[in-house]
Amino acid sequence: MRCQVAIIGGGPSGLLLSQLLHRAGIDTVVLERQSRDYVLSRIRAGVLEWGSVEMLREAGVGARMDAEGYPHDGVYLACRNEGFRIDFKDLVGKQVMVYGQTEATRDLYEARDRMDGKVIHNVEAVQIHGADSDAPYVTYTRDGTEHRLDCDWVAGCDGFHGVSRQTIPASVLKEFERVYPFGWLGILSETPPVDDELIYAQHERGFALCSMRNARLSRYYVQVAQDDKVENWSDDAFWDELRRRIPEDAAERLVTGPSIEKSIAPLRSYVAEPMRWGRLFLVGDAAHIVPPTGAKGLNLAVSDVHYLYHALVQAYEGDAHGVTHYSEQALARVWKSERFSWSMTGLLHRFPDRGAFEARMQEAELDYLQHSRAAQTSLAENYVGLPY
Amino acid sequence: MRCQVAIIGGGPSGLLLSQLLHRAGIDTVVLERQSRDYVLSRIRAGVLEWGSVEMLREAGVGARMDAEGYPHDGVYLACRNEGFRIDFKDLVGKQVMVYGQTEATRDLYEARDRMDGKVIHNVEAVQIHGADSDAPYVTYTRDGTEHRLDCDWVAGCDGFHGVSRQTIPASVLKEFERVYPFGWLGILSETPPVDDELIYAQHERGFALCSMRNARLSRYYVQVAQDDKVENWSDDAFWDELRRRIPEDAAERLVTGPSIEKSIAPLRSYVAEPMRWGRLFLVGDAAHIVPPTGAKGLNLAVSDVHYLYHALVQAYEGDAHGVTHYSEQALARVWKSERFSWSMTGLLHRFPDRGAFEARMQEAELDYLQHSRAAQTSLAENYVGLPY
Repeated sequence: MRCQVAIIGGGPSGLLLSQLLHRAGIDTVVLERQSRDYVLSRIRAGVLEWGSVEMLREAGVGARMDAEGYPHDGVYLACRNEGFRIDFKDLVGKQVMVYGQTEATRDLYEARDRMDGKVIHNVEAVQIHGADSDAPYVTYTRDGTEHRLDCDWVAGCDGFHGVSRQTIPASVLKEFERVYPFGWLGILSETPPVDDELIYAQHERGFALCSMRNARLSRYYVQVAQDDKVENWSDDAFWDELRRRIPEDAAERLVTGPSIEKSIAPLRSYVAEPMRWGRLFLVGDAAHIVPPTGAKGLNLAVSDVHYLYHALVQAYEGDAHGVTHYSEQALARVWKSERFSWSMTGLLHRFPDRGAFEARMQEAELDYLQHSRAAQTSLAENYVGLPY
Repeated sequence: MRCQVAIIGGGPSGLLLSQLLHRAGIDTVVLERQSRDYVLSRIRAGVLEWGSVEMLREAGVGARMDAEGYPHDGVYLACRNEGFRIDFKDLVGKQVMVYGQTEATRDLYEARDRMDGKVIHNVEAVQIHGADSDAPYVTYTRDGTEHRLDCDWVAGCDGFHGVSRQTIPASVLKEFERVYPFGWLGILSETPPVDDELIYAQHERGFALCSMRNARLSRYYVQVAQDDKVENWSDDAFWDELRRRIPEDAAERLVTGPSIEKSIAPLRSYVAEPMRWGRLFLVGDAAHIVPPTGAKGLNLAVSDVHYLYHALVQAYEGDAHGVTHYSEQALARVWKSERFSWSMTGLLHRFPDRGAFEARMQEAELDYLQHSRAAQTSLAENYVGLPY
């Protein structure tokens, strides 16, 4: 089999790239290790930067998002019992869109189906060959049969544990990492969200986040110790802890119910450089991880897709500039989002290794942010997404 | 002897407070451990926030500063060989004034002289008594004779090592401290400054600062290890190291000459709470230390004086609100300046204990700052001074 661009990974970034390239007349095959049902059952982020919204529209998959998504004009930050709002609309004239990653992925699958896009599920033993040559190809097995997919380019959209990054020789790859000394315990519950917008709460007991998927589906998180276990948390214990950390008026409004999902995620910052090796490109989590504070993970994958999509279109028009510079172009924005996610994480969490002075610095940062329009504008421009 | 306000310490904050209170008809005595010549020989900071400039004018000591000081509309930040300017005037409509602390102190002494202000030098064994009573007094010896100064209030303007803070019982005092793992090696030289404005340079070899006192007197600094010694640094070695860390065009313009002062200062953040105990007030370095990055030390002392001056005038008009709330009012601004000094220090220095990810975060912060008007506005509003 042969295609122009082989895409490893059928998550949102792989599908979006495939969809955009298809519309530009470039032929792709998407290889996904899991079944479609499995991919669509993964619980993921739900806040889209405005640039991501526009990319989904450009890919022709914006209709349901525009009908069912929730544009948010701001977020609340809270410290102890005091809250204040960052008004994106007023500060930077933009919004974000609350629309679950799962929903966007479903829309992308349906669009690929409509266009007869080739998405091959349940592939195993994927290997990338000749990425540093002019004739790369991908091999994989499916139902016990080995297959070979020849291509011009390989897009590695296969996440942190995927094969794509591992294909780049260790002598070439530089890795940067920070592991935070805590995790997020999150639950999904079929209850109305406590607020129309998100509430990020800093508290001496630890961070808490009130988030949402839609008017009947809430997503809440509390910071927990790195070695904590889901089994230690009954639903009641979770709700009690959440109530303690959010402002009183929010705690009073909070509607609780049984969790339909409960899990603990570690917090990590990670970047691999370069993001291109020969004809192989890394996209999204394959190259970088952000802690979830600030909701940059999916958005950063979309921005990688943005750069790679334009680079490949350019390349087929005979201009190699975009593909040659993909890595530095994508990384410039990656590092900015890493910075923002790292600083939001630092601002809002309780760090067990911080001393009394550092704790006061954290309070002073929030206090300054509450009262400075310039500081709020800086947060807002990052939250809604810096320009591509 | 008796006065209304006994002021411990004849540095700029003690003298300014004395001068302002005198003009409001409130009687003070200033007690200073050192001779006037000694006080005026100390090399100190030289950048005044605009609020400090206005305070000196209000105290009637602004004439020489306005004639000889250098209003600066911005500063340069540099990273490796690339520099960019933070334009205070454009961003926040304000300036700072370069005018040496020594000069301001001299002006204050002359003003106190003209008004027959009581400034008693070479006092020893100062002790504060009954600060938590209605009848405080200060004892000291001078030329071997013991003296007693009765007063209504005691202002502790006697610096970090002074007796004032030590008078507050340990059970009352809370201390917050951060010691940075490096120091600043500074030299003063009778050479024209390399630039009209200050240059703050981040460099992989360490931070450097090009500063000035006037058109013929330059002040330069390089970050050195915590345990480094002045004896390790010839003038030539200093100039060589400075040249390596600042942008090439600045290095080419740099005029070098013999140092007339050379010393290493440690970097520390420190805050003591509360800043009032009964009738004793802490002012300036007696209560807090900032690392010099961002030039907040003297300015924070001036802002303490601002609050205390107004509080005392109010108190003599029968309203105790200002003195009762002096500590919380002063501390609110102290913590904001501590935050700014700490974050500027973090942004610009090389931290031996930082990993590769953190080093990239530092680069990303500078890169973001270079390209974001909101981030520059935030820096500018802090640098020129947040409102009182």
